[in-house]
Amino acid sequence: MYRSHSCGELNATHINNEVTLAGWVQKTRDKGFMIWVDLRDRYGITQLIFDEQRTAKEVFEKAKTLGREFVIQVKGTVIERESKNKNIATGDIEILVSELTILNEAMLPPFTIEDETDGGEDLRMKYRYLDIRRNPVKNNLLFRHKVSMEVRKYLTDQGFCDVETPYLIKSTPEGARDFVVPSRMNEGQFYALPQSPQTFKQLLMVGGMDKYYQIVKCFRDEDLRADRQPEFTQIDCEMAFVEQEDILNMFEGLTRHLLKEIKGIEVEKFPRITYDYAMKTYGNDKPDIRFGMKFGELNEVAQHKDFGVFNNSELVVGIAVPGCASFTRKEIDALIDWVKRPQVGASGMVYCKYELDGSLKSSVDKFYDQEDLKKWAEVTGAQPGDLILVLSGNADKTRTQLSALRMELGNRLGLRKPDEFAPLWVVDFPLLEWDEESGRYHAMHHPFTSPKPEDIHLIDSNPGAIRANAYDMVLNGNEIGGGSIRIHDKGLQAKMFDLLGFTPEEAENQFGFLMNAFQFGAPPHGGLAFGLDRLVSILGGQETIRDFIAFPKNNSGRDVMIDAPSVIDNHQLDELHIQLK
Amino acid sequence: MYRSHSCGELNATHINNEVTLAGWVQKTRDKGFMIWVDLRDRYGITQLIFDEQRTAKEVFEKAKTLGREFVIQVKGTVIERESKNKNIATGDIEILVSELTILNEAMLPPFTIEDETDGGEDLRMKYRYLDIRRNPVKNNLLFRHKVSMEVRKYLTDQGFCDVETPYLIKSTPEGARDFVVPSRMNEGQFYALPQSPQTFKQLLMVGGMDKYYQIVKCFRDEDLRADRQPEFTQIDCEMAFVEQEDILNMFEGLTRHLLKEIKGIEVEKFPRITYDYAMKTYGNDKPDIRFGMKFGELNEVAQHKDFGVFNNSELVVGIAVPGCASFTRKEIDALIDWVKRPQVGASGMVYCKYELDGSLKSSVDKFYDQEDLKKWAEVTGAQPGDLILVLSGNADKTRTQLSALRMELGNRLGLRKPDEFAPLWVVDFPLLEWDEESGRYHAMHHPFTSPKPEDIHLIDSNPGAIRANAYDMVLNGNEIGGGSIRIHDKGLQAKMFDLLGFTPEEAENQFGFLMNAFQFGAPPHGGLAFGLDRLVSILGGQETIRDFIAFPKNNSGRDVMIDAPSVIDNHQLDELHIQLK
Repeated sequence: MYRSHSCGELNATHINNEVTLAGWVQKTRDKGFMIWVDLRDRYGITQLIFDEQRTAKEVFEKAKTLGREFVIQVKGTVIERESKNKNIATGDIEILVSELTILNEAMLPPFTIEDETDGGEDLRMKYRYLDIRRNPVKNNLLFRHKVSMEVRKYLTDQGFCDVETPYLIKSTPEGARDFVVPSRMNEGQFYALPQSPQTFKQLLMVGGMDKYYQIVKCFRDEDLRADRQPEFTQIDCEMAFVEQEDILNMFEGLTRHLLKEIKGIEVEKFPRITYDYAMKTYGNDKPDIRFGMKFGELNEVAQHKDFGVFNNSELVVGIAVPGCASFTRKEIDALIDWVKRPQVGASGMVYCKYELDGSLKSSVDKFYDQEDLKKWAEVTGAQPGDLILVLSGNADKTRTQLSALRMELGNRLGLRKPDEFAPLWVVDFPLLEWDEESGRYHAMHHPFTSPKPEDIHLIDSNPGAIRANAYDMVLNGNEIGGGSIRIHDKGLQAKMFDLLGFTPEEAENQFGFLMNAFQFGAPPHGGLAFGLDRLVSILGGQETIRDFIAFPKNNSGRDVMIDAPSVIDNHQLDELHIQLK
Repeated sequence: MYRSHSCGELNATHINNEVTLAGWVQKTRDKGFMIWVDLRDRYGITQLIFDEQRTAKEVFEKAKTLGREFVIQVKGTVIERESKNKNIATGDIEILVSELTILNEAMLPPFTIEDETDGGEDLRMKYRYLDIRRNPVKNNLLFRHKVSMEVRKYLTDQGFCDVETPYLIKSTPEGARDFVVPSRMNEGQFYALPQSPQTFKQLLMVGGMDKYYQIVKCFRDEDLRADRQPEFTQIDCEMAFVEQEDILNMFEGLTRHLLKEIKGIEVEKFPRITYDYAMKTYGNDKPDIRFGMKFGELNEVAQHKDFGVFNNSELVVGIAVPGCASFTRKEIDALIDWVKRPQVGASGMVYCKYELDGSLKSSVDKFYDQEDLKKWAEVTGAQPGDLILVLSGNADKTRTQLSALRMELGNRLGLRKPDEFAPLWVVDFPLLEWDEESGRYHAMHHPFTSPKPEDIHLIDSNPGAIRANAYDMVLNGNEIGGGSIRIHDKGLQAKMFDLLGFTPEEAENQFGFLMNAFQFGAPPHGGLAFGLDRLVSILGGQETIRDFIAFPKNNSGRDVMIDAPSVIDNHQLDELHIQLK
């Protein structure tokens, strides 16, 4: 046994105990006649003391040689500390060391192993194993474990069976780009790594597994935007003999369980809003509802005056920014510059201050009188003291721009509180989206998503208006999960492929295998997948998923710690029947 | 809600309840005026009854159209069954159906969905989603979930943190062949899929994670022997600040927990035997100790007589086969033929019957008298009624042959009982094994395995005799887990590389990255990995891992259900900067 206790557990009740500890030297303070060492392990920090008077000379001398991050083992007696440290669990005691063993020396680490480190992102990623010694990173990994274990417990209690699906599967041309794996034993052929276990979970439903879940790595070879990873983790779930309502209730239950067990927070029943409502009210299908600033559509009250900009706009829409009527001209100009940045893309912005005295002062007073502006306040829900900001133009684009502005102001005004959790469901997504480039409809979720029965009659006349049995769970402005009820009827599925522009042959080529399975008795089924990386980071009160992944890759898909990917030798290539181009 | 109850839960307490059930038609019996349907879901089977007298005509007619594996939903009343079926949980009741909905029709399945099916292995693999509907396969998957969940609970309770390590890592020339993944974003470079997270778990120890576990897929591109899979699942564990004793205790605890929770069996403290003892006593480093037939070495008592075959043998070794003295000449000749098969490779076998009257009758009576043979009986532990079988020749080969014979007899005599569990530890494995082909030593476990301190002095004089801090857990004749205490001392590690024939440059090239991490304060650490597929199959009382994998691959590494691997198009190859050879 290398230790009798961890570095996080000794306290006043252990005084006079003989103990053995092991860990890393966090820091040393050498006062000549007395040396203090902070000894750290995963569980905490314990102060060691070497005293010229009370410590054997040989041990005392050895203590003088200790450097940061040395790995040591000590034996000693727990004694009461003179100056107690109330900030740490072990702050009442220290260890008067009698024996010291240096288990391993350490080179000076390239950055400080402290909560606030001096290491930049690149350096910390290169030496990720040292970064993990730091409390913030270590605690994120422990937190992730706690979340995934609670997910497993809840789903197991609900009767879900964790089934491992294969990683070496078949490449399909649909969706994102696959990572592929050349086969040595099957010359000229390739496996693909799964983008999700979608097909397999549907087959498990055909197989009668009824309730399936898996916490599983998925892979997408896409150009990486910030905070996207080529390999990511999904909580993947599917249920048979269910309707949308059953799924929403089950996974709302899971999320409430997590919020309660992990964060100690009880949340009300999740609001459910439609995709249409979300877009009209927040300009966004994943609204952050921790704060208001709901959109007010001003076409009726602001058009047909002499202000040509509004008159020529498809949509005039505003928000009331709480308590910001006091913004200076300079502050407002900066906001206008902000919305005009290429990333947002507005061509301009109109504002109206709703002063505390009840008067209204706008940038378009030339065209609107107090009565007009009062209506603006009514529609946007503005109160005296608020600042009304108005954008106009093409409806979709304007909503997107105003959504960006709303989120920006939510951040600036501190309304997006990391310890507040406002989950909701967004339902009734469109089944299809029109793709300008290919001039045809694409499945918004995937081709197996079922349309709402009451919308099926639109299938020939107005397919774009069909709503799907598809739903997203949104938490604090992030989509944390999404899914759908699948089609389990052959005829409807064929119609769907037709709608998506597949010939029967193409449908057979690409999806024949699942369709074939469906002929042997497919039950009604549906499911949902959570993005675990994202879910954990939001529950952790942060937004960077990389901070919650032990060994993440950078934006070029590289693991800079192990320096992967890398070249392989020709012999390996030969065996795989491939060569570099 | 598609159902108010599952097909496994209704019993006499529900009589007169109105219920809704959904599931698959297992079978129908149509007596003209009465139709019975067995309705099946994951949870069980419930009998439905359609009665010409009591069922609406339309419903009754529809019931006549039901075929095997149709997916249906029924509403009806729970009534007491006339002829009760004590074999199933719902055997006291049946459902008098009032409403019937056919949710999906089904083509006739290619094999029967029964516990004993008429489908061969190939057909069942092709339609694995139908195979999973069968109780034996479904129950194996549920059993696997139960085992993995108990593993997680135990390790979590013991303070282990589940850390997900990456799947897209770096190819290393050591060990088995890697599966590789061409990188699109890094031209000419490849990721490798992990053969195990060995490096990452050691880095997590350097990172202070202290106790790590993961249930993780691993990949080896090896020619597949029977019951090997290119992707397999490991319970991967590592601990810091531990000695071998700590690890053995921890994972013995895990296995005892599993046996107790899963099988309801309390086992004694696991026996620990050395590799040397295992080889000498069982001819095997993973002995099945559910039965005896320990080896007795007969050199002393059987050599130096006139029997040249024994005199010229390095080893003469026998086992006492319990109660088999009564074997006929023909039975013994068949056994002799069995050991002479090329798969076993013995050149002959000597036998000696220890008759119930105490007399001994051997095939070499010409050379040995009763006194001599009595000694054979003593050494092999034979009792009257036993049959002593003796092989001789080169020591290693003879032990392997006798081990094969011992296992064969264990099987034939029914001594390898699937419901009996006899775990043990095999410890003190050799650090190195001599490889004839390359004319150098190889690491028996891996190059980071630490030698026993008391053997380090042999490092120059007799490295082959050095024992390692390496251990295997063996259960019923299968290695279910193995691991080692790792080297954490730079100097010793360099010496080890030297011993393995690496130049310092080669060591740096191949392992520099981990060695570099070790310079920043590596704690003493060690670990173990269980093969989950194997563990689950043995706990399930079976030996074929494929039966416990939802979607296994065949011996050519193909998934015959989805037909993977497959060709991919040239555009994909182009993007990956590779071409077929």
